[in-house]
Amino acid sequence: MSSVTKRKTHLIKPLLGLDYPEVTHGKGIYLYDTEGNEYIDAASGAATANIGHGVMEIAKVMYEQATRVSFAYRSHFTSEPAEKLAGILANYAQGDLNWVFFVNSGSEATETALKIALQYWQERGKPEKNHILSRWMSYHGITLGALSMSGHIIRRRRFESLLKDYPAVPPPYCYRCPYNLSYPQCKTACASELEQAILKIGADKVAAFIFEPVIGAAGGAVVPPDDYYKEIKAICDKYEILLIADEVMTGIGRTGKMFAMEHWNVQPDLIALGKGMSAGYTPMAATIVSDRIIEVIEKGSKVILSGHTFSGNPQSASICEAVLEYIEKHNLVQNAKEQGERLLMGLSNLEAKYSLVGHSRGLGLLCGLEFVRNKETKEPFPLELEITNRIIQRAFQKGLILYNAAGGINGNSGDAVLIAPPLTINRVEVYKVLTVLEEVIREISLELKNEGLLTNRSIS
Amino acid sequence: MSSVTKRKTHLIKPLLGLDYPEVTHGKGIYLYDTEGNEYIDAASGAATANIGHGVMEIAKVMYEQATRVSFAYRSHFTSEPAEKLAGILANYAQGDLNWVFFVNSGSEATETALKIALQYWQERGKPEKNHILSRWMSYHGITLGALSMSGHIIRRRRFESLLKDYPAVPPPYCYRCPYNLSYPQCKTACASELEQAILKIGADKVAAFIFEPVIGAAGGAVVPPDDYYKEIKAICDKYEILLIADEVMTGIGRTGKMFAMEHWNVQPDLIALGKGMSAGYTPMAATIVSDRIIEVIEKGSKVILSGHTFSGNPQSASICEAVLEYIEKHNLVQNAKEQGERLLMGLSNLEAKYSLVGHSRGLGLLCGLEFVRNKETKEPFPLELEITNRIIQRAFQKGLILYNAAGGINGNSGDAVLIAPPLTINRVEVYKVLTVLEEVIREISLELKNEGLLTNRSIS
Repeated sequence: MSSVTKRKTHLIKPLLGLDYPEVTHGKGIYLYDTEGNEYIDAASGAATANIGHGVMEIAKVMYEQATRVSFAYRSHFTSEPAEKLAGILANYAQGDLNWVFFVNSGSEATETALKIALQYWQERGKPEKNHILSRWMSYHGITLGALSMSGHIIRRRRFESLLKDYPAVPPPYCYRCPYNLSYPQCKTACASELEQAILKIGADKVAAFIFEPVIGAAGGAVVPPDDYYKEIKAICDKYEILLIADEVMTGIGRTGKMFAMEHWNVQPDLIALGKGMSAGYTPMAATIVSDRIIEVIEKGSKVILSGHTFSGNPQSASICEAVLEYIEKHNLVQNAKEQGERLLMGLSNLEAKYSLVGHSRGLGLLCGLEFVRNKETKEPFPLELEITNRIIQRAFQKGLILYNAAGGINGNSGDAVLIAPPLTINRVEVYKVLTVLEEVIREISLELKNEGLLTNRSIS
Repeated sequence: MSSVTKRKTHLIKPLLGLDYPEVTHGKGIYLYDTEGNEYIDAASGAATANIGHGVMEIAKVMYEQATRVSFAYRSHFTSEPAEKLAGILANYAQGDLNWVFFVNSGSEATETALKIALQYWQERGKPEKNHILSRWMSYHGITLGALSMSGHIIRRRRFESLLKDYPAVPPPYCYRCPYNLSYPQCKTACASELEQAILKIGADKVAAFIFEPVIGAAGGAVVPPDDYYKEIKAICDKYEILLIADEVMTGIGRTGKMFAMEHWNVQPDLIALGKGMSAGYTPMAATIVSDRIIEVIEKGSKVILSGHTFSGNPQSASICEAVLEYIEKHNLVQNAKEQGERLLMGLSNLEAKYSLVGHSRGLGLLCGLEFVRNKETKEPFPLELEITNRIIQRAFQKGLILYNAAGGINGNSGDAVLIAPPLTINRVEVYKVLTVLEEVIREISLELKNEGLLTNRSIS
């Protein structure tokens, strides 16, 4: 991925045998490597570094907490940082989402949501409600319980024999509507499919429906049509099915609201959080649970049977608290909204200008571009051509970091990237991102044209 | 669990509705709460706080790393802290265990080991080798893939419908040998059962066998007989089955060796690490993989299909590196051996003296006591009596923290605690632990006698 000298390594990296540049430090939206290269982290790592890199306020809080206590086990003690952080999150979350279970990763957060959903129905005397419905073109994490709910074909493939379920519902992916309809004439047929799935499986067998409010890694910032979640909510209410919003990527301001579901004014029963919650300063994640659910369990067994060693450790909790304070102090949710609109406008200009860009989309600072072979027919590139990788590597060489969201269509095709810079990005920096991105797209477009791989009639 | 005033809380704790004391700070083996109580953390939280609490060297490293960079995504960058930490772990691990995959929790570490084992056989053209064998009376984590391998009946029960497999092999639990034999006359019949299981399922269907070198939370520090692991290794070699040592609890010096498997001079193919690796200063864990496995994958797909957002983040890596340095500098592995022998001697005195104590056991500073209703017959208490909880709560009131390992026998009975203090504990502190522990056992013994619950003829 760069020209660094091959070093003796014991670290398993994504691609074995490949050398990766070594990060030395970061400041704001920038990261630097040992060769003195500067990169704009327009991916926030993996939509994670929401307050940017090298924030000194966080370093200080880390140190101060560590001088007191970093770790105490949740079966023995509570702690002020964990209590405060839970309070802040409960306060941010809509309606009666007032209870927080801390874990260490987004995968653990979606698995915890799944488990609490099952337990809720067990305690209500309906243990047979134990299936979790989910969508294709989704990603809920890499542990096997989380992967089982995920409609990410490439990541599932190797472990299919260990997975419990398949997703049951198509994604709200208007750009390639499976019914060849368009909104609103479609009457959100993709939402109605949830009802069909429930009827086929039996509502008495279904515990919950899990979804990403905006489809992230599996699709490249796919935003559902306006009425979609209202429909989903109505269906779930009708059949007594819990709604789990996987806001691991979208949560904590990423989309220009604290939680993405606020855009549609729909309150889920459980929320999974991760990534931006700690902005990468510590591995921490959480599941937020509604009063209704906790009340049933508190009247019943009183014990949520989950638990992770590091769960709610005061060290990580104090860091997340400082991150949330930083977001509030610098008005970053509002900034995500404003800069997100600016970024998306720039991306739609690229869509208008280049036939390689089939679709631009996004919400707040979770944006995406989908690349196509033929803009009129929307014909995708076959995955073997590795178009997304080629674009990402070219951008990387130019000091711009993007996030790979390839393979979304069916696991065999579909090229897309996420553009999801830190929420601290300013106007000038947005234009800088767009400038480099356009340079990359222009270059690759020309190359693909010369290679005969772009089949549009007119190529800009 | 204490007398603290009920506070408005949004934090989901182990037992809903119960108040927990609030930890304020810690130093060495001691923790303190808001009411000024002092506790000896003889559980190291959950066998985690291996270097004790409030170590200033760690606080300084945290701060310094945070001033540079806390997070960069592994698909984009490597980092010096992650490379160094991987090198140190590879150097500690036996033989060709030279490759490290970083994750955030022990559950993720055992799941990663499982996935790499499956992938290894896929790349060797044997995808049907995809079952993981494990033992009853074991615990490998709470995510569904990890729980599926776990023989922890109580923790499985609620999610049985989501779990893929049952454990296939009995534990090496000599105190209650299922064959009513004793070592060495038994010829480690419990190890031979692994061979029986392999033959029943078919060696061509089995990818790996996972086990805890010393059984932790599920059994209370159960140590197998001497030849056990040599037998297990021979069986796995014979049938081409990978050996996964779950050293999440036993690793990094806890048992008086860097890795517990060194006690038996048996090298596994994969090791899962967690807990003591970061000593609780950050959520970090790892899977160590042998050259043999990596070479096959590097010649094949080159991509280990796992990955967690925070994986190998420089912030956590620098903290773990500092923890390992501290362990080395203060000779804590040797100290664990010496103080562990002292602790175990004290525990065996309690066994000799009190009929409530059926068995004392352990290795290094991972020790356990099993409590019985009748010492001669080894009759356990029924789980409803909550004897373990009663002992743990009494100890807690006296400022001694123990770890609950109840329910191990069959999920319906079996009372045990782990005693696993920080590896920094000194001689005087060991005696202090033993003194309070004896006081607790004496009190509870008398009470149980008065309640008619101890059925031994002679009660001390």
